[in-house]
Amino acid sequence: MTNWREVDAIAKEWIKEAGERIKQSFSKELLIETKSNKNDLVTEIDKATEDFLIKNINQTFPNHRILGEEGLSEAVEDLKGVVWIIDPIDGTMNFVHMQRDFAISIGIYEDGVGKIGLIYDVVADELYHVIKGNGVYMNDIPLAPLKETSVEKGIIGLNSTWVTENKRIDPTILAPLARDARGTRSFGSACLELAYIASGRMDAYITLRLSPWDYAAGKIMIEELGGMVTSLRNEKLNMLTQNSFFASKPGLHQEILEKYLNNGKW
Amino acid sequence: MTNWREVDAIAKEWIKEAGERIKQSFSKELLIETKSNKNDLVTEIDKATEDFLIKNINQTFPNHRILGEEGLSEAVEDLKGVVWIIDPIDGTMNFVHMQRDFAISIGIYEDGVGKIGLIYDVVADELYHVIKGNGVYMNDIPLAPLKETSVEKGIIGLNSTWVTENKRIDPTILAPLARDARGTRSFGSACLELAYIASGRMDAYITLRLSPWDYAAGKIMIEELGGMVTSLRNEKLNMLTQNSFFASKPGLHQEILEKYLNNGKW
Repeated sequence: MTNWREVDAIAKEWIKEAGERIKQSFSKELLIETKSNKNDLVTEIDKATEDFLIKNINQTFPNHRILGEEGLSEAVEDLKGVVWIIDPIDGTMNFVHMQRDFAISIGIYEDGVGKIGLIYDVVADELYHVIKGNGVYMNDIPLAPLKETSVEKGIIGLNSTWVTENKRIDPTILAPLARDARGTRSFGSACLELAYIASGRMDAYITLRLSPWDYAAGKIMIEELGGMVTSLRNEKLNMLTQNSFFASKPGLHQEILEKYLNNGKW
Repeated sequence: MTNWREVDAIAKEWIKEAGERIKQSFSKELLIETKSNKNDLVTEIDKATEDFLIKNINQTFPNHRILGEEGLSEAVEDLKGVVWIIDPIDGTMNFVHMQRDFAISIGIYEDGVGKIGLIYDVVADELYHVIKGNGVYMNDIPLAPLKETSVEKGIIGLNSTWVTENKRIDPTILAPLARDARGTRSFGSACLELAYIASGRMDAYITLRLSPWDYAAGKIMIEELGGMVTSLRNEKLNMLTQNSFFASKPGLHQEILEKYLNNGKW
């Protein structure tokens, strides 16, 4: 049987070391490759970080499998056994342009159930972490269960892409939500925005396109604290494909679904 | 004649001390008052910070005047002589909800001309500062002159408010810009987003409503580095009233005006 506390301890060591390597790279010039999508910048550092994590996982846990953004690991087509779902640098554009507001995300699942989540905001040195059933922490601070809130009081992570002409959703569906909320934000790193929900800094996060490695860790944290994580049609997320994505504090999730999303039937 | 280096040195001491007081307040419970606008949260800390700055300025520079957000100082109806334009906590909502991503902003003007700008990201401990004609710094790092860029390569600070139904601009005017840009962001603190332009982290910032204390410091920095700061109609800003606001790296400013804003005649 897997000793999750041991796995957690060693994963934390790796994520901290990966963060340290990234920080050391800041003085060097960044070499940017463009992926198929112009918004999806990949850097050498990104690849090197994934490579570092994969080598460590393979050596220490040869039976575990890895699902990662950069595609350096073998294809994973199901979630049987233990699977590490990793994003070496979430918020690559922020990493390249800002050298801040990016994070390393690691979610560890067993037979599809989230067991460990780690999100490391490298520059702020804030490590959000959870072992399922044992609470969520930001560094050494335990995070409180999420309180119910409402649209009127809510700060919602919502990029302007989804309220203007785009390929995935009629912009008039979410525009009223942007108008009614206390405020909207877009920090440019999905996994950090999920960590912000877990820590009460934001109240919801909505996007029309998210990959499993973007939310694998944050999902475990938000659910551990009583929040909701579904697709924007209120379905369970498929951890092997891209999804629309809707994470929220309790109360707010239901309110947004009912008032703005026709209970998921939009 | 004013010795600007002396003024700069003492203003830096005050802004750092004000930041330290804010950080110490984090353990106490925040008492939130609601201003007329539901989005405009004011806290005791906000007022105490302005009070601290005003007392220091009045004692040390009795001939200088002060224009501040919280209205604790006397009314300023022109910019003759030396005027300190201060925002004790820019990004109050972030301050209350997130305890990060807010800043103290101080711009010092003489007969309407920007002389000193200070923006202090308290939690990240990043102090952006400029003495006009002597370059801009982030802590001890000199910031490079701003390079020309384009919409296609640009990361633009633009809240979803301005591309959905609102009272100030037809949302279809800026929606194409949100679509064409490499990315949009909304960090929830205008003065920090201006500091991000100065440091090359973002490329432009657009809003339909900004007060002088939000941009007084950032304007000096961006202009010192070769960027442009105007209203969204390409007019000079009126430092005594609210304005629409458009700050940008060179090249990009012209491109956005021509392609999306009908040269300011929208």
